[in-house]
Parts: sequence; structure tokens; C-alpha cells
Amino acid sequence: MFYHEPELQFEVEVEEPDPYFAKMLQQAIGGAEGEMRVALQYMFQAFAVPAEKQEYRTLLMETAVEELGHIEMLATAVAKNLQGAPEHMREEARENDAVIDAMMSGGQPRQALSAGLHAMPVDSNGVPFTGGYIVASGNLAADMYANVMAESTGRLLASRLYEMTDDPGMKDMLSYLVARDTMHQNQWHAALETMEDHVPVPASFDQSKENQDVNYEFMSTFREQRENPDQRWTQGQSPDGKGEFSYSPEQPGGGMPDLEEVIDEMYNSPSDE
Amino acid sequence: MFYHEPELQFEVEVEEPDPYFAKMLQQAIGGAEGEMRVALQYMFQAFAVPAEKQEYRTLLMETAVEELGHIEMLATAVAKNLQGAPEHMREEARENDAVIDAMMSGGQPRQALSAGLHAMPVDSNGVPFTGGYIVASGNLAADMYANVMAESTGRLLASRLYEMTDDPGMKDMLSYLVARDTMHQNQWHAALETMEDHVPVPASFDQSKENQDVNYEFMSTFREQRENPDQRWTQGQSPDGKGEFSYSPEQPGGGMPDLEEVIDEMYNSPSDE
Amino acid sequence: MFYHEPELQFEVEVEEPDPYFAKMLQQAIGGAEGEMRVALQYMFQAFAVPAEKQEYRTLLMETAVEELGHIEMLATAVAKNLQGAPEHMREEARENDAVIDAMMSGGQPRQALSAGLHAMPVDSNGVPFTGGYIVASGNLAADMYANVMAESTGRLLASRLYEMTDDPGMKDMLSYLVARDTMHQNQWHAALETMEDHVPVPASFDQSKENQDVNYEFMSTFREQRENPDQRWTQGQSPDGKGEFSYSPEQPGGGMPDLEEVIDEMYNSPSDE
Amino acid sequence: MFYHEPELQFEVEVEEPDPYFAKMLQQAIGGAEGEMRVALQYMFQAFAVPAEKQEYRTLLMETAVEELGHIEMLATAVAKNLQGAPEHMREEARENDAVIDAMMSGGQPRQALSAGLHAMPVDSNGVPFTGGYIVASGNLAADMYANVMAESTGRLLASRLYEMTDDPGMKDMLSYLVARDTMHQNQWHAALETMEDHVPVPASFDQSKENQDVNYEFMSTFREQRENPDQRWTQGQSPDGKGEFSYSPEQPGGGMPDLEEVIDEMYNSPSDE
Amino acid sequence: MFYHEPELQFEVEVEEPDPYFAKMLQQAIGGAEGEMRVALQYMFQAFAVPAEKQEYRTLLMETAVEELGHIEMLATAVAKNLQGAPEHMREEARENDAVIDAMMSGGQPRQALSAGLHAMPVDSNGVPFTGGYIVASGNLAADMYANVMAESTGRLLASRLYEMTDDPGMKDMLSYLVARDTMHQNQWHAALETMEDHVPVPASFDQSKENQDVNYEFMSTFREQRENPDQRWTQGQSPDGKGEFSYSPEQPGGGMPDLEEVIDEMYNSPSDE
Amino acid sequence: MFYHEPELQFEVEVEEPDPYFAKMLQQAIGGAEGEMRVALQYMFQAFAVPAEKQEYRTLLMETAVEELGHIEMLATAVAKNLQGAPEHMREEARENDAVIDAMMSGGQPRQALSAGLHAMPVDSNGVPFTGGYIVASGNLAADMYANVMAESTGRLLASRLYEMTDDPGMKDMLSYLVARDTMHQNQWHAALETMEDHVPVPASFDQSKENQDVNYEFMSTFREQRENPDQRWTQGQSPDGKGEFSYSPEQPGGGMPDLEEVIDEMYNSPSDE
Repeated sequence: MFYHEPELQFEVEVEEPDPYFAKMLQQAIGGAEGEMRVALQYMFQAFAVPAEKQEYRTLLMETAVEELGHIEMLATAVAKNLQGAPEHMREEARENDAVIDAMMSGGQPRQALSAGLHAMPVDSNGVPFTGGYIVASGNLAADMYANVMAESTGRLLASRLYEMTDDPGMKDMLSYLVARDTMHQNQWHAALETMEDHVPVPASFDQSKENQDVNYEFMSTFREQRENPDQRWTQGQSPDGKGEFSYSPEQPGGGMPDLEEVIDEMYNSPSDE
Repeated sequence: MFYHEPELQFEVEVEEPDPYFAKMLQQAIGGAEGEMRVALQYMFQAFAVPAEKQEYRTLLMETAVEELGHIEMLATAVAKNLQGAPEHMREEARENDAVIDAMMSGGQPRQALSAGLHAMPVDSNGVPFTGGYIVASGNLAADMYANVMAESTGRLLASRLYEMTDDPGMKDMLSYLVARDTMHQNQWHAALETMEDHVPVPASFDQSKENQDVNYEFMSTFREQRENPDQRWTQGQSPDGKGEFSYSPEQPGGGMPDLEEVIDEMYNSPSDE
Repeated sequence: MFYHEPELQFEVEVEEPDPYFAKMLQQAIGGAEGEMRVALQYMFQAFAVPAEKQEYRTLLMETAVEELGHIEMLATAVAKNLQGAPEHMREEARENDAVIDAMMSGGQPRQALSAGLHAMPVDSNGVPFTGGYIVASGNLAADMYANVMAESTGRLLASRLYEMTDDPGMKDMLSYLVARDTMHQNQWHAALETMEDHVPVPASFDQSKENQDVNYEFMSTFREQRENPDQRWTQGQSPDGKGEFSYSPEQPGGGMPDLEEVIDEMYNSPSDE
Repeated sequence: MFYHEPELQFEVEVEEPDPYFAKMLQQAIGGAEGEMRVALQYMFQAFAVPAEKQEYRTLLMETAVEELGHIEMLATAVAKNLQGAPEHMREEARENDAVIDAMMSGGQPRQALSAGLHAMPVDSNGVPFTGGYIVASGNLAADMYANVMAESTGRLLASRLYEMTDDPGMKDMLSYLVARDTMHQNQWHAALETMEDHVPVPASFDQSKENQDVNYEFMSTFREQRENPDQRWTQGQSPDGKGEFSYSPEQPGGGMPDLEEVIDEMYNSPSDE
Repeated sequence: MFYHEPELQFEVEVEEPDPYFAKMLQQAIGGAEGEMRVALQYMFQAFAVPAEKQEYRTLLMETAVEELGHIEMLATAVAKNLQGAPEHMREEARENDAVIDAMMSGGQPRQALSAGLHAMPVDSNGVPFTGGYIVASGNLAADMYANVMAESTGRLLASRLYEMTDDPGMKDMLSYLVARDTMHQNQWHAALETMEDHVPVPASFDQSKENQDVNYEFMSTFREQRENPDQRWTQGQSPDGKGEFSYSPEQPGGGMPDLEEVIDEMYNSPSDE
Repeated sequence: MFYHEPELQFEVEVEEPDPYFAKMLQQAIGGAEGEMRVALQYMFQAFAVPAEKQEYRTLLMETAVEELGHIEMLATAVAKNLQGAPEHMREEARENDAVIDAMMSGGQPRQALSAGLHAMPVDSNGVPFTGGYIVASGNLAADMYANVMAESTGRLLASRLYEMTDDPGMKDMLSYLVARDTMHQNQWHAALETMEDHVPVPASFDQSKENQDVNYEFMSTFREQRENPDQRWTQGQSPDGKGEFSYSPEQPGGGMPDLEEVIDEMYNSPSDE
């Protein structure tokens, strides 16, 4: 069960509004690397945790709820970047209103057309957020890796956005968001540390049932056979500590894919035979 | 530049065709955890590697190409599961053709309607594969975590499919695919080992620029303030070795989101003022 | 800024688990009529309310937060419907596990394959939730109508689900959700009552600028001209009180769409001229 | 059964072509607020009306068919805005062709690349039209509210577009479209007036079956309990005339979501236990 | 400008309703091979035809309008297949209502949940229709090939559906739709005949500007070089009459993809260098 | 089973990087007319070919594999267009970095934000590639027409891109790609020549089962009945050689769509009756 308080989680100030930056910020709201994704991902992961693992449910849900507050911050940042336009834009504007001019010639059209100069649940190209971004596998180790990845690309995005603005308020906000991503990356790694023997995921699948010839073999797909290039992933112990890397210059090969003709009712025959 | 050989990478045999299993296999072709995703993900990651890091480009591309062969195997498996139907289905069938009857009452309709009893680039619900599944960030450490995640959920999917069939041929094929996912998880972990000091991602962002108050603090979002629950992620050294976890029972708070009214041309006013 | 408490908003009990009903419940989570849509819709609408209209921001945000709790309830309901299978299913099952058998032959495959028998951010067909469902227009009257609509189709969905189960726990939960939709429909209507003179939306567009010939005219598109059928929408005062309905048996007509040939660089010419 | 006449429904003239405005117009064709949505929405709603309610089927279908003509008008407007470029653009153009230059640096790329300078079934960001926008619920009252909403956001969009152009021809066309949206909003309201006692939707669900404790209660989700804020939606009679609003400072609460561990075949266990 | 008449284009009768067939019919409404696609495709193609080619605009628009009538027929067919259930289903039904039971255990859930037992703008898996299916290129020859393809897969779909039902009414309707697809395939071929010298498309691109070494060469991508297999596509005159097929056992090869490191602001570096 | 060689298939050079052109090139990678589509389309078509038609499987797979190499070339071209910016951009740039400035004000945001200045599996608007573009019908004649269409729109796209750049390297690359599309169009036509009597598709459906009244009749949908306009598609022999075109000034008409009221459990009734 959820609650709210009207204050923002962290302050959001914009000194020089920039409608182009408002477009870029959408990626951090509704994009693959954005806050809607992590908020909902952690939430659905939490929903699936059984009662006896309550500490993980708590960890996931608390962070999900923090991320909801980040969506709120970013939506506020978008709106503030669209309230008024800076001097240099007003001068270049073809029409009366510099913001609208910017929206038309390179901004995010739907922030104006569909939302009246506000944030939307879409990415920087206007592609709607999709539940397809969310990973909640039922297996906590897999989920934690998904979270490490989500925070890695999320912090990368925030870092890139940090470089694209000179506005002190925006830099402050992004400095906060980058810091939270630092924490979140670390906490998911920490959670993985509490799950012993979790590689390869899923750890509970009996490895004796997997094909023993190829489970630690680097399989080259180069056209011409090559010698073992002696990389970390072609020799030595595997990181899971359960195997020894080897190198195969060839794929095993498994015969021709001998499909039969399909039943007539499918009308697959290309001509009138 | 790519090449092909008509043989499959590993043999694909089906003793007792099962159209329901053919539906489930689609998840491993065009689903979020499937082979199209990893093949194309590794490929786009490889495309972005600069010349001086050729060993990573090779690693990524060789595995991408192996995964293309898995799509081919799984597509063959789908077709073979749709060629004929087992005894118990033929008896229950309402109509002449047991396979078509199964497709209608619970199978994957488009494998029949759109593909004439063959595989499609969709998931087990018929949702088309989307480029939105692909993560290729330009940062190799972020990419490797994305790959660990992809192979974790991929191996989880293959394990679940393994339990859903009794067909020896299908079990053989899945035993092979599970094994390859074991290898791939290990190789991405191994690649991460070769990148020193890569947490938090991106490592090249100067951490002194991130907000120092909250970058290693666990922020509780519980309604009622609680004491530090003393978990691995609320105290002690952070996994990146660069900070010390702390616990905050409260979010910082950042003032009200004080938006102004938007320019009249947006017609945001709800009534005729 | 958001908070959470581990209890559910309302109790969720399942006496006789039903994996088919678990599939249907997905529509109420990630479907066009579902709780993710309303939670996020009200949230994005709230994000756009200016400071001077705080009471509407509060109204929207409080309800958004309530809806987050409904997602949590429904996700719990899905998981409980997938924990074990009722007697009649176990008897019919082709394979060992009746739940998995049901998932394969007509359930929601990804609840098993992708989520390990848990809820997902998708609809009853497995189509991912999309931000495209969300309406947050920047105009509060338009938003309120969007909300009346969302709760109307939401209550319709909940009513239909109510009829599809005999499980007392599920009926209790749906009785609660239907009741909340009753309240929410009423509260959005009540909010519209507080906005005087809001039809047609947007009320602030100067109606003297709209075409005066057709703004209260019912335009028949029947092939054969017909007499005024004398319906509520072809005569008498319009509901906005600003016009008088009239009936036109014909569309106005506006000349041929006389497009010129496009510049050569587009290569639109169909043949080698 | 449908028919066509080659004339447009209303004239479409463009004096000064503007490729940026051509991009914006796409929102009115293939966007969430656009004409494809209403044309198809009213059509699918009409398809579901039973014979004994023929007057509603007629109402819906006649308007659907009118909207088809609006798509035709807007597609013509797009093409005319892309035929040639105005003076100021030709001067600024980096390359020979000012239109193509505009398409590349901020226009809608696919209008050129995919359609040879013509309209497409996509929105202003190039996101394809989707059937997911369409609401046709089988319940006419719900459908009418969906239509009020569609015309509200549609008229809002047309009003915003009206402000973004100075071209007299485009202003004429938009003045016509705004007027039609005025009529359509009014006609859907009028249709609702003919359905007595339709709130809450669906009216035929026996309200005695809904939870009586919360069906007219405003449920606060604020973190700190607050007093009844005395708004229109927290006290007094509800708009449906069937209840009395009350205010609850708390959500009911329903116990912990006590999920059990899932069967082993799902491999949900995060480590090798 | 469009018109309508309340009669269907061709009669639609269902003797024995079948909710599973209602699911399959959705593919012919909102699927990639369905009627929404062709109706809208021909319409958008027509919208782009310049005035001097009016006969093609007419051809396209007349057929578009016919296809609208097919959507209407199919939507009626879906509804009739969901009105009541046949004997054998009523006997097997777990619950009171056999239709709802079928919807839950293998039918199309949203036909019930979202549409109250009516058709929807989705395919047989419930995936929404998308504008992404529509091809309207601005080049009439390309469009005609797109139309030949659309009618080829459309007639294939209708043929397959024809085999999946024994209902005489449904067979009659499909016999009509198959026949129309026969006509439409022929008319698009006929239109191509009127465009002289249109291969390769676009015919107006000066072929002397294309790379002359490879424009009629079959390029083998087999791993091992092979001899010319002497197929129709490796030797002899090309179908466009403008070249002579040749066979190359190898791809040309173009050097290594030597990318430089990207600017620091992108934070692509995987570790802290 | 697939293989790779690190060299590109054809050289990719960029003299004057242009971030706007990098955006346009995305259409040729992940767009409806792009290389991901053809590569995967031919691959899935090949997967469905039965053993006895091996020559078609080979034809399809060899070309699929060639197209994979085109994705690689285009991804390289995108990256090279984003490495540095030309003089005129650096002068106009508002901020330090001209490339980033271009990305923000009209380029493709996600090439920077999500990919660190590299290619992505999306189109020129950033809409992700979707499996919905892929046609693999199980019927080789239908597939070949789909391929003719794909290469027609593909060559049209490449021709348009060719006109949008003055860069000699890019023109060379596009000259190569246009040439390959010439070849591929021809080879699919050639393959059709080897399938005798394949129109209408599917040729194996017994035409005596299709409605004989309308299978070669052009059906006018004009509002006013017109005389036979005497076009190639209204008279004379049909291109399949199996019929004679005729002209009908009217659609047949099939009675009213007389739907009954739906069962009460669907709550379709709009008011409380």
C-alpha cells in the first residue's frame, strides 16, 4: 500500500529553460534506461517474492518507491525547461513564440501537442514507455543482474545528460540522480553477495543435465579456423568456479534441417501442382 | 561480413510433436529472453567497439553469430513440433486435423494463420520481437552486465522449457542450449574481470561530481521511520570498494514542485476564464 | 515523494486457484482498462498541474497512489491463482504438473516462462503495457473526461471479471475494486462540476474563431440523402447551452485534392520516363 | 458498406508550405488524439451495436465516416506543406533542396524517406498508429464517455495546431475541424442524455454487490493523516445521486501478501540450495 | 469524402457459433494480413497520387473503400460466432456459460473483457493493429508490389481460415473474400502492366549511378566457395531485361571497420582510465 | 550455422561527418524498408522451406546472410557520421560540442543518449525495429512477392538517401547498396519465374470453391454509379490468364448486420434497465 507527500524528493530548479533539453530528459522518464522502467521493474520483482524472503521484498519495494519520486522530479524538470525560452532562442525564432518555434523545428512535438508543454510517458523520440522493458523473472539472482544492468545504463544516461547542460539547477539534480544510481548499483551487487553460489543463473538447475561437452567451451564462429587466441574467456578457470574454459575452433554441427512438406490445408505449395 | 553453412549447429529431433510446446518455444526465439535478442544485442554492441579494443569486438561478434545458429535450431524445432500431432490429441480433436484443432483451442494461432505451421519472429503470446529489447550502450562494462542479465534470463527460460517437455529430442536440444548459456554467462563475467575498476558504471564519470550525501546511503521509503535493519546494503563497505553504506530513515525532501501557468496558446485552462 | 507500507490495501484471498483466471486478471493490471494505466495517468496529470491549482494536483495524486496499491493487490491475486491447481485440472492434466499443463494449453505462457508463475506488466494476451494508453493533456477538463472514461471501462472490466469467477476471495476483491471505481467515476464528475463552463473542451478557445456553419450541425454521411431523423443530436439546444443542433443531409464538399508531382529526388515516378 | 466521392469534404489550401508544420499535422492523423483513432473507434463501436439500438449504430457510423474524410483532408494538407519551401528556409538551407534540408534537420524523416513527401499513418514523432488507442467496450455509455474524451483531446490538439500556423488556408481548415469537434463533443453528450441512469458505468451491475464501505468514500493516501479538506469530492451528494461522499484519512489495509514458494520446476530459487 | 449504407456488402451468417473461430477471424481484421491493413494502405497510397495520375487514385480509393466493408463483414462474423455456443461446448463447460468458459481456456480474452463479446482492432493473438503494417511509398510501382504482396498473404489467410471451419455461412463469406482477393491480385498486376519499364523500382534512378560490378551478380555467402549452381538467378538474362546474371563465390570485402574512440562526454570508456 | 569474418563486405568511408545524415541512415538499418527486416525476413522464410525444395532455402539463406553484412556496413556508417562534426556546424553550435548540439536540436537523441554516438536497432524516428515487419508465410510465391516489395521499397529508400548526401564515401556505399537491391529484385522475380502457374496466390486453393460472381469483377464503390471507365483492370483478360475482367457499378449488398443483445454477464447494457 502506497503513500505520498507533496514535496519533491530533491529540489528541481531551472535557471535558463531549454526546450531541447526537455526533449532529452524524456529519455530518463520513459526510455529504456529511465525511471519508469526501474520503478515498475523493482515493484513487479517485489510482488513475486515469497513471504520467507521478506528482506528482499523490502529492499526491492523501498527502492521502487524511491524511483517513483525520481519520475516526479524529472517531470517537474521537463515542465520548467518548457516555461519560457532563453534569449538566444527568442532572437532566432521564426514566429512569435520561441518555445513553440523550438518544439516545431527540433524539440519534442508531443510535449506541446499532446501535453501542453509538460512531460509525457515516452522516451526522447516520443516512443511510448512499454512494459516490455521490465524484467521480473521470479528468480532473484536473475532479477539482481537485471537491476545492476538497469542502473548501469541509467547512470550512463544521467552522466551523458549531465554533460549536455550548463544549467546549475539541472546539474544539481543530475548530480543527485547519478549519486543514487551509484548507491543502487552497489546495493544490487551487495544483494548478490548474500546469495551464495548463484552463478550460473538459475543455480538450482542441476548442471549434470546440461550438455557437458560445451558448457565451458568458447566456440569460435570465425570463417577460418584459428588458434586459441588465449583470452581470459578461452582458458583458465571459469568465474563460477565450476569449470575450466576451453577453446573450440569449430561449431559442432548437427545435420541438415530436414523439414517435411506441411499438410495441404495450409496451402503452402507455391504453385498449382 | 557473414557466412553460412546449411547444417544446423546442433541436432534437432522431435519424437512426439506437440503444438503446445511449439507455442512455448516461440519465447526462446522472439521473446525478451530469446535468441533474436542476444544475437542482435551482441551484434550491435560489436558494431560500436573502437579499433583499439578489437578483442572485445571479436568476442561479441563470435557469440552473436553463434546465437544466429540457435535461432535456426529453434525455428526447426517449432516446425517439427507442428508436423503431425500425437495420438492423444488426435483422439480429442473436434475436427479432422488434430494440429489445427490444437492451434485454435490454445496453440499459437499465427504459427498456422500467418506462417503455415512454422516459426515466427514473435514471442509465446505472438507479440512481435522488438528492437526495444536490445541494449548496446556504447560502454562495454554496461554492455557486459546487460549480457550477463540476458544470459541469466535466457538460461532460466531454457530450464523452464526443459521441464515442460518429455520428448528426448527436445530435452537434448535444450540441454545443449542451457550449456551454452552457462558458458556465455561465464564469458561475460570473465570479460568484466579484464576491465579493472569498472563499478559503478560508467567508471569514467568523476565521482566527485556526484552528490556526496547520498551516493552510498540506503534511503528508506517506508511510511514510518524505522531503525537501520542491518542488512548487507545498509552498512559496511560497498561492493565497489569506494564507499561505506549508511542508512537514512527518510528521503531528503526538496520543496514543492511550483509550476507556473503555461502560455495561453496551449489552451490548458480547463474553463472559460 | 512516495512511501510504502508492506500491508496490502485490501485483503486478497484465493480458495481455489485457477490459472485461467490468472490470465484474465492480467487485463486489470497491464491492459488498456487496467490499474497501471490509471495509476500512471493520474500521476502524469498531477505532474502538470500549476501551483495555483493545488487542490486538483492533490486529488489526482492521491488517487494515483491508491491505484498503485491496486496493482499490488492484483499481482498478489495472480500469484495466488497460480499456486497449485484445483482438482478437476489435476485429473485432466496430460503431464505431471497441472498448472504448467494449463499454462501450455490455454493459460498465459509468459506468466510461467518469463515470470515463474507470477504477474507481469502485460494484458490478458501478453501484450506489454504501453505509455500510449496514458492521457495527460495539460488541460484539466480534458483530463477529467479521460478519467471518467478510464474508470468506466475499468469498472466494466471488473464487473466482467466478477462474473467469471466463483471463488469467494476473488469476488470479495473484485467487489472492492468495483466499489472504488464507483467512487472514482463520481469524483471525476464532481471535479468537472467545479469547472464552470468547460464544454466544449478546451473552453478557452474563442469559439468565434471556429467555423460557424458547422459547429452545431449534424452531418449525415449516408449515401442517400435522408430527412432529419429527429434525434436528440439533430435538433434542440446543444448540451453545452451555446448552440442549436441542426441537421445537414450532405457534407459540404471542398474540391479535388490537386497534388502536384513531387521533386525528382524523391524518385516517386513509377516508371522510367 | 462504404462509398466515396473524389472531392474533399472541405477545402485544403496552403499558401506558404512549411515542412515543420507538416510534421505537426501528423499528430492529427495518426496520433492518440488524431482522426484515424476516432474514425476507427466509432466504426468498431458501431459494429457492436445490436439491431434493436439501430439509432446509436447510425449515429456512430455516420460520424466514423465523416472522420475518414478528415484523414483525407489532413493527408492532403501534409502533402501541400511539403510541396516547395518558403523563402526563409531556402536561404538558410545547407544544401540545394530546402525541403529536404528541413526534413533532415528537424522535420519528420519518414515523410521523405518512406513516403516521398507525403502523409503517413504515424504521429508527429513517427510512432505508428496503433489499434491500442481504440476504445469499443460493448457498453454504449462507456463508449460515449470515450468519445467525449477523444473529441476533447482532439479539439485541444486542433486548437494548439491553429496557434502554430499563420497560413490562412491552414487556419481555415483547422477552424473547420475545431468546429466539427465542437459538434461531436455535443452530440456524444446528447447521446448520454438519452441513456437514463447510466452512472456509474456499467449501470446494470447490481450496486448491492459492490463493497458498501468504500463506494462513495474519498480515500486519502497522504503519508500524514489529514482532516477532511472539504472539497466537492469529499462531502455532499455524489454526482450519480446514489450516494453521499465521505472522507477517510486512511486506506483500509488488508494484511501481508503472503506468497508461498513456487514449484521447483520454475527454478525460482536464487541460489543452489 | 466518404459515405455509408447500413447494409453489409455481402451476407454474413453463422449457423453454429464457435468462439475459437472468432479468435482466428481477428487475424483477418487487425492482423498483418488483414483488412484494416489493406483498407488503410490503399487509402494512404491514394492520398499521395498527384492530380495528373487520377486513374490510379481512383483505382486505389475504390478498393480501399471496398475493404472497409470487409472489416464490417468480419466484425459481424466475430460477434455472431460469440453469440451462444454450440452443443459440444456447453457440455464440456466448467461453468454456467460455455462461451465465457471458452474465452478463458483458449479463446481471445479481450473479445470478452474489453469488448463484451465483439470484434476488436487486434490480430488473433490480441496484438493491436499497427500503422507499421502500411506501405505507401510515394512510388506507384513500389506500392503496387506491396499490394500484390498484401493480397497474396491475405488470400492465403482466407484460404487457411476456410479450412478451419465447417460452418456453411462462414464458408460462404470466406468464399466471397477469397474471390475478392483473386480480383485484387489481378488488378494490381494489371496496374503494373500499365507502367512501362518499372523494374527495378524505382525506375527513375539512373542505373549508371549504381555500382556496375555487383548489380546483376549473385553473391554467394556460403562458407566454402562453391561452383555456380546454375540456377535461374545465377546466369542468363535478368527479368528486367537490363542485365545478365553472373555468379560470384565470394563477397567483395571492404576492409576493417576502423572506428575511433568517441569523445569523453559520452562516457563510453568501460573502466576508470 | 553461421560464420563471420572481421572485414566489412564493402568499404565504408565518410569524409565529412554529418549527424543529421546519421539519423537518416537509421531508416536503412531498423526501419520498415531496412536491412534488419530483409535479413530476418529471408532467414525466417528459409527456415520454413522443406527439404525437397533445398534450392530455394539456399537462395533465401545466402541473401539473408548478405543482408547481415549490410547492417554491419550501415552501423559503421552511422558511427563514422557521428565522429566529429563539419565546420559549418561547429560555427553554429550553441555549446562546446557541435555533434552533441546537433543531436539535441534535430538529430537522433538516442544515438547519443542510449548508444554513445553509435547505431541502434531503430528507424530514423527512433521507433524500434519490430518483428511485425517480417513476412514469412510458409508459401514461397507469397514470400517472393513480399521480397520483391521489400527490395523495391529498400531500393527507393537507398535512392532517396543517395540524394541527401554529397559525401563521396557515402555515395559510394549507397551506390553499392542500390546495386544489390537491383540484383535482389531481379533474383526474386527470377525465382517466381521458376514457379509455374502461381497467380493468384495461393495457387493450390481450388478456384472452383471461390465465389464465381465476383472473382474477376472490378467493384466500384463510387457514390454515384458510373459507367465502366474502360481501364486495364475493368475489361480484357486478367493477368493470371484465368478470367475476364468485368465492371460492376455497385457492391452486391448483403442485408443488415442483425446482432442480438449479448448475455447479461457482459454488462453491455448502457443504462440500468
